[in-house]
Amino acid sequence: MFKAYAAMQAGAELELIEFDPSPIGADEVEIDVENCGICHSDLSMIDNEWGMTTYPLIAGHEVVGLIRDKGASVSQFKIGQRVGLGWFKGFCNHCSACQQGDHNLCATADMTIVGHHGGFADKVRAKANSVVALPDGIDPLSAGPMFCGGITVFNPLVQYNLPPTSKVAVIGIGGLGHIALQFLNAWGCDVTAFTSSEAKIQEAKSLGAHHTINSRDPQALMDAAGQFDLIISTVAVKLDWNAYLNTLTPKGRLHFVGATLEPLDLNVFNLIMAQRSVSGTPSGSPETTRKMLDFARRHDIKPQIETFAMRDINQAIQHLRDGKARYRIVLEN
Amino acid sequence: MFKAYAAMQAGAELELIEFDPSPIGADEVEIDVENCGICHSDLSMIDNEWGMTTYPLIAGHEVVGLIRDKGASVSQFKIGQRVGLGWFKGFCNHCSACQQGDHNLCATADMTIVGHHGGFADKVRAKANSVVALPDGIDPLSAGPMFCGGITVFNPLVQYNLPPTSKVAVIGIGGLGHIALQFLNAWGCDVTAFTSSEAKIQEAKSLGAHHTINSRDPQALMDAAGQFDLIISTVAVKLDWNAYLNTLTPKGRLHFVGATLEPLDLNVFNLIMAQRSVSGTPSGSPETTRKMLDFARRHDIKPQIETFAMRDINQAIQHLRDGKARYRIVLEN
Repeated sequence: MFKAYAAMQAGAELELIEFDPSPIGADEVEIDVENCGICHSDLSMIDNEWGMTTYPLIAGHEVVGLIRDKGASVSQFKIGQRVGLGWFKGFCNHCSACQQGDHNLCATADMTIVGHHGGFADKVRAKANSVVALPDGIDPLSAGPMFCGGITVFNPLVQYNLPPTSKVAVIGIGGLGHIALQFLNAWGCDVTAFTSSEAKIQEAKSLGAHHTINSRDPQALMDAAGQFDLIISTVAVKLDWNAYLNTLTPKGRLHFVGATLEPLDLNVFNLIMAQRSVSGTPSGSPETTRKMLDFARRHDIKPQIETFAMRDINQAIQHLRDGKARYRIVLEN
Repeated sequence: MFKAYAAMQAGAELELIEFDPSPIGADEVEIDVENCGICHSDLSMIDNEWGMTTYPLIAGHEVVGLIRDKGASVSQFKIGQRVGLGWFKGFCNHCSACQQGDHNLCATADMTIVGHHGGFADKVRAKANSVVALPDGIDPLSAGPMFCGGITVFNPLVQYNLPPTSKVAVIGIGGLGHIALQFLNAWGCDVTAFTSSEAKIQEAKSLGAHHTINSRDPQALMDAAGQFDLIISTVAVKLDWNAYLNTLTPKGRLHFVGATLEPLDLNVFNLIMAQRSVSGTPSGSPETTRKMLDFARRHDIKPQIETFAMRDINQAIQHLRDGKARYRIVLEN
């Protein structure tokens, strides 16, 4: 039997349930969940904000744990080995995206908490090749958030082959942004944090930002015109995107890893005149995740976490809903 | 004295005027205009659609002609040499963009018809390094439109290092699009034309399109889901951009060389889920223009033109305003 915390309807407090899993697939692993981060997208799924939740929903997609069982064809993991699981829990392995290593762009990828049971549980299943070994030297307790928040902000650096000579800004210093600052600093870039919170200015600097800009100050945005090669937006709220476009250099990129439901309302002249791009990426591939973990270990990069016992999950979720998480919450089994 | 056809106010018919130019600058050339194309952006400037026109306006920025005079420091051209002049007529030559060869992204570039006198004239001036020699083997009569329409659609192929294995679509088969189809076919790509005009289907195929899609048929757009690595939009009207985003492959790019005044209203999930980009480019640099001319000569690519005498310029402009140009109009002196 699997024990898990499930939302029975949109927005509900989670309830402890038990269920019998189907027999393990030949290409699957079963993971004893040691701990699991809470991501804003867990809340979006609990609340059915994206209209794709099925209830009961077992959320949780920032899992660290030990392989406790594996299917007959799984040769890359040993029982007892420590691994991580993120947003994706399986891929078709044969589409063009998978064949070129972009498993995270597989149109039929299985998502850990969409139509499947996630990591707010004692055990979780996944296809073995969506799971990544946790290398020695990475702290297991804080590693969970690397498998969604971390890889989501690391991925664009790899995808666009970001030169370390770049000036990069991060919008939103929260669960994702606070890891992005660390990665970008270690990547060698000149790093700016856009934040609406005065309280976060010093924290942003301690996380790796060389500069901060108050994102609520239109004059400060205008003063930053033409500066940034890349801006990574981690926020889920509508901002004045054309004002941010103006802070890009020629050939600069405004990149979204946070999603707003409102359209982007971009002025096309702002793109054309300076050859700017606007783009987005989801979570990364297993191979990019491996590279991230290696990079994080080399540079001692980790999420700042607050921990709750798994049984206090509703209290932890409320803490996140209240905007109090600094910066990522991890549930411990 | 220079003789030129000028708009004295927004939307007015052009009038023949004469003016005395200032002494030629040390880094300038003076060109005897042999012929000059008419671009949609000439109309936008005549009508002050972009709010940056000063009157009297002498439009015209697709010039082919002969060097008749040059400043003391101009060594790269000989008197009598045939050259072309496009959207840009001068660069600062010292900003980062210029220093890395992206003169077309120079924030203080001089634009041929913005605050300067363009090519609807018998003579025109430009900074020498904005002018490109017309190689032997390129037809001078039809070459003018290459210096704006042609380079504008060729430039993104170079900027994004487009692989010839790509599937590419062009939206709008007009002055720009009909040249884009030829370039893309010669580039080795699989080429699709999106057109709202049944009449242009056969023409699009004769220009290099392997496939055509009726852009007014929403079902046809849905059937094309996930196909294109690149879409180049040449149109100046608002379309259902999210429907076009859906026709891109993972990592695909929706690229604008035509500008709409209305914002793009993009769904950010459409970018994030498949790592798509939206971007724009202006006209190209002199060096990219040289590459384009070499490529065009090798593949016998040229605009399809209709010619009018320069003195019939108002008749030619009305022909373009009526949407009757097939595909580019050239004025002959």
